[in-house]
Amino acid sequence: MAIRYHKIPDETIRRLPVYLRGLIAAGQEGKKEISSQEFADFIGANPWQIRKDFSYFGTFGTRGVGYDIEKLIKQLKKVLRLDMPHRAALVGVGNLGTALLTYSGFGLYGFEIAAAFDNDSKKIGKKIRNIIIEDASCLNTLKTSKVKIGIITVPKEASQKITDGLVESGITGILNFAPCRLTVPKKVKVITVNIATDLARLPFYMPAIKTD
Amino acid sequence: MAIRYHKIPDETIRRLPVYLRGLIAAGQEGKKEISSQEFADFIGANPWQIRKDFSYFGTFGTRGVGYDIEKLIKQLKKVLRLDMPHRAALVGVGNLGTALLTYSGFGLYGFEIAAAFDNDSKKIGKKIRNIIIEDASCLNTLKTSKVKIGIITVPKEASQKITDGLVESGITGILNFAPCRLTVPKKVKVITVNIATDLARLPFYMPAIKTD
Repeated sequence: MAIRYHKIPDETIRRLPVYLRGLIAAGQEGKKEISSQEFADFIGANPWQIRKDFSYFGTFGTRGVGYDIEKLIKQLKKVLRLDMPHRAALVGVGNLGTALLTYSGFGLYGFEIAAAFDNDSKKIGKKIRNIIIEDASCLNTLKTSKVKIGIITVPKEASQKITDGLVESGITGILNFAPCRLTVPKKVKVITVNIATDLARLPFYMPAIKTD
Repeated sequence: MAIRYHKIPDETIRRLPVYLRGLIAAGQEGKKEISSQEFADFIGANPWQIRKDFSYFGTFGTRGVGYDIEKLIKQLKKVLRLDMPHRAALVGVGNLGTALLTYSGFGLYGFEIAAAFDNDSKKIGKKIRNIIIEDASCLNTLKTSKVKIGIITVPKEASQKITDGLVESGITGILNFAPCRLTVPKKVKVITVNIATDLARLPFYMPAIKTD
């Protein structure tokens, strides 16, 4: 049974993948150790925040040396449960879905999009990056697969139906791009990505605009 | 001179657009007041977190009544500086860029994508949703426009050059989808969206997967 780190706050969990990516990049540059200050500068974060976040799972740097990068990467992957590969199915091969299917950044965290579904007969059977698009009415083929994650990029109106189909097929984690809340059983986790909310916090940080 | 709310933590600013969207939705359902508990249930958040976040800009609910929705929407828009329209230019009309150009969710926060650029001669001159795609080597046409926000959806390799071009044209806020850090003058704010980091925190919340 894997250790669970239930007491780590959501806000810390939100930052850990960013740290992990930064540490991998630092490691690729040939670094072995990194201080919290150096790491903070490298990724553009606060050193005290980094130290606090790492302390939640009992990782502390050595004074004057800092963190052992390789060990810390291992630890972060363990906490985030990224120390095993994860397979995902994407539903909705429109512009956003296609962008995600051809996006190379998921591999860094051990994710692979292993299946794609759409309800458009013109798309079904076509291939994007080695993945043949399947009929969205056949989500139950996932039951016998190792896919446990669903990525939803269908229009809002179709999203709950697709969610239900994914849950019935054994999916327990959903990354949702549809602009709505999805109803799922308690054991299923949904993270909704809303790009507009990222844009919406930008003006707060911008210089005042003269209104005329 | 607009009031600035410098002391509001970044994490609060991150949540305010989510609250704003929830309040607008509650208002559309005909509600006039909402308690922090009711609102927390409505958007799936913690009531104490909501109360704390709102207290940063001096907004407190009335005991037994809750928050005045209309007033709170106004206040949130003021804090986030969304009480004026914002025009954005998008650079890179690939799959992701096209998805964003046709996305209807930006309007809720008062954003309008007013221009789009690409370097592909086959795309330049074409129209997506009333926007004619312009040549990416002509970003300086933005100088005389009211566009102050840039949305970057070009490949990593091109992103810094595009950033420099946008900054020279008077852009002071950038929403960056390229998987890299951009160098900008201090007065320019960059928010980098990395979809992989959202996916990367999903397994933490999922039931343990049997590894075989």
